[in-house]
Amino acid sequence: MSVLIVGSTALDSIKTPNAENPRLLGGSASHAAVAASFFSPVKLIGVVGDDFPKRYLQLYKRHRIDLEGLQMQPGKTFHWSGQYEANMNRRRTLLTELGVFETFTPTLPNSHQNAPFVLLGNISPSLQLHVLKQMARPKFVVADTMDLWLNIALVDLLKLLRSLDAFVLNDSEAHQLTKEDNLLVSLKKIHKLGPRYVIIKLGSHGSVLSSPRGVFLCPAYPLPKVVDPTGAGDTFVGGLLGYLASAKGSIDDNIRRAMIYGSVLASFCCEGFGLRRTTKTTRARIEQRVRELERLTKF
Amino acid sequence: MSVLIVGSTALDSIKTPNAENPRLLGGSASHAAVAASFFSPVKLIGVVGDDFPKRYLQLYKRHRIDLEGLQMQPGKTFHWSGQYEANMNRRRTLLTELGVFETFTPTLPNSHQNAPFVLLGNISPSLQLHVLKQMARPKFVVADTMDLWLNIALVDLLKLLRSLDAFVLNDSEAHQLTKEDNLLVSLKKIHKLGPRYVIIKLGSHGSVLSSPRGVFLCPAYPLPKVVDPTGAGDTFVGGLLGYLASAKGSIDDNIRRAMIYGSVLASFCCEGFGLRRTTKTTRARIEQRVRELERLTKF
Repeated sequence: MSVLIVGSTALDSIKTPNAENPRLLGGSASHAAVAASFFSPVKLIGVVGDDFPKRYLQLYKRHRIDLEGLQMQPGKTFHWSGQYEANMNRRRTLLTELGVFETFTPTLPNSHQNAPFVLLGNISPSLQLHVLKQMARPKFVVADTMDLWLNIALVDLLKLLRSLDAFVLNDSEAHQLTKEDNLLVSLKKIHKLGPRYVIIKLGSHGSVLSSPRGVFLCPAYPLPKVVDPTGAGDTFVGGLLGYLASAKGSIDDNIRRAMIYGSVLASFCCEGFGLRRTTKTTRARIEQRVRELERLTKF
Repeated sequence: MSVLIVGSTALDSIKTPNAENPRLLGGSASHAAVAASFFSPVKLIGVVGDDFPKRYLQLYKRHRIDLEGLQMQPGKTFHWSGQYEANMNRRRTLLTELGVFETFTPTLPNSHQNAPFVLLGNISPSLQLHVLKQMARPKFVVADTMDLWLNIALVDLLKLLRSLDAFVLNDSEAHQLTKEDNLLVSLKKIHKLGPRYVIIKLGSHGSVLSSPRGVFLCPAYPLPKVVDPTGAGDTFVGGLLGYLASAKGSIDDNIRRAMIYGSVLASFCCEGFGLRRTTKTTRARIEQRVRELERLTKF
C-alpha cells in the first residue's frame, strides 16, 4: 500500500572532523521517503526553491517517489548546516536558512488524500495537523518531532498527539515531554497523551516500542564506523512505515519487524554523508542485515 | 561446577534523593557471590574487619557461600559511601575507608585452588594476578575492573589481560583503555590485549559481547523504577559466571544465555538497596524474567 510522507526537503551542509560536504540532499521527508521506497510506493509532500538541483529530483525519481505533491517555488531551498564532533554523538547547528520553507503550506493533491499510511515527518506540529486534516481516512498515522517543537509549539503538538496512531521521539525529547528519566514510565505517560504506539529512539542503543502487545527492545545495527548520522532518525521511521505498508497482517503482527527494518535502513544512512549510502543499498543487502540482527540478538 | 570469586567485601552507605542507607552489605565480591549462588556453589575470597555484622555472615551462609577463604582481621571493614543524583545515572563517592582491605593479601585454601570457574572481581589488578597464580588450572577465568585501575595500575592490568579468558568493563572504561568511541572497534582492540571473550557493559542499555562466535547484543531487563544501581555490574558478571558454571556444553554454547541471566540478576539488584532485593529473589522469579526478556526482544 502507498505511503504519504510530509516533512522538510532540504539542502544540508555537513562538517565532520574529516570532511566537509556542502548542499547534500537532506531534510526529514527526503530521508524518510528514500527509506520507505525500498518497500512501498511513496508520495512526497514538500517544498523546494528554484535552486534545488535537478539531480536530486532525479534521485527521488529513481526511487519511484511520486513528486506530484512536491511544490517548486521561486526562492531558496531550506538550507541547514551543522558540524559534528569527533565521536559523532554531538552536533551543533551552524546555520538554518528557511527559504521557501518559511511560507510552506502543504496542499494535498486529490490522489494523495486516500493514502492509507501517513508519516508526518519532523516539521511544525501545526503543519503536521494541516496535512492530517486533508487525509480521507488513513489506516495508520505516525509522527516524528524534535526538541524545537516541544519548546515553541507544545500546545499544537499535544493536539496532534490525540490524532496519531504512533509517535516517535528520541530519549531526550521524551524526557522533555514527560519530565521523566525512566523509559517505561515515560512511555506510559506518552500513551496517555493519545498514541497507541510509542517509540523512543536511543541513537546507537536502538529504540523501545510500547504497544498493545507490550514492550519491544529494538537493537540498532552495530557499525564499525559512523560517517554521518544526519537523518538516521527520519530514515528509521521511513523504513519502518514503508515496511509496515508492504506487510500482510495487522499492525501488531508487523510493527516489531518494521522497526528492525527501520534500524537497518538507519544503519545504511549513517555509513555515508546525506543520502549517499542509503540510495545505493538494495533489498538484498537490507535482508542480509535483518538476518544479521537476528544472529546478533539470538540467545 | 564451583565458582571461586575474589573481590571486595564491604559496607556501603548509600544516599539517594529519597533515602539514606548506612552500612549495607556491599563490595564487588558480595554482589557477585550472591548472584552466582543461584546457579552454582560459590567460594568467596575476601577480607572483613571485626566490625563486620554477624547478620551479613549469615546472609552469605543462607546462600551456601563457602566462607573458608573469607579472612577476618582486627580492624575496620572496607567502608564506601556514595550519593546518587535524582536520575540514578550519576553518583559521587563521599568516602572510602579501606580499613583491613588496605593490607589484604588473599591466600587460597588448598580446597579452593582447583575451582574450575574463577571471577576476579573489581580489586587491584595485582591482587587479581596474585589470586590467579594460586589457581591450579581453571577452566574459565573472567575479570572485571574499574576506571581507578586504568588510571593507576595500567601495567598490571595489561599483564592480567594476557591471562584471562574473558574481560568485562563498562563503555567509559573501554573508551579509556582503547581511546576509541566505536564499540566494535574497541572490542577488537581489547581482544588484541588477550581475552577471547570481551563484554562491554552499557548500563541500562545492556551489554555487548564479542566472542569466537561473533557479537551478541544483550539487553538489560527494563525496570519501571531503579532504587539503587550499586553493584549491578558485579551482580551481572556474578550471575553470568554462576550460570556458565552450571550449564552443560561449551562456553560458546552458553555464554549468551549466561549474559541474559546476568542481566536479570542485575535487574533485581537495582530494585533494592544493597543486596536486599537480590537476596530475596528465587530461581523461579529469575526464570520468569528470562522468559520476559525473550518476549521483549522477539521479532
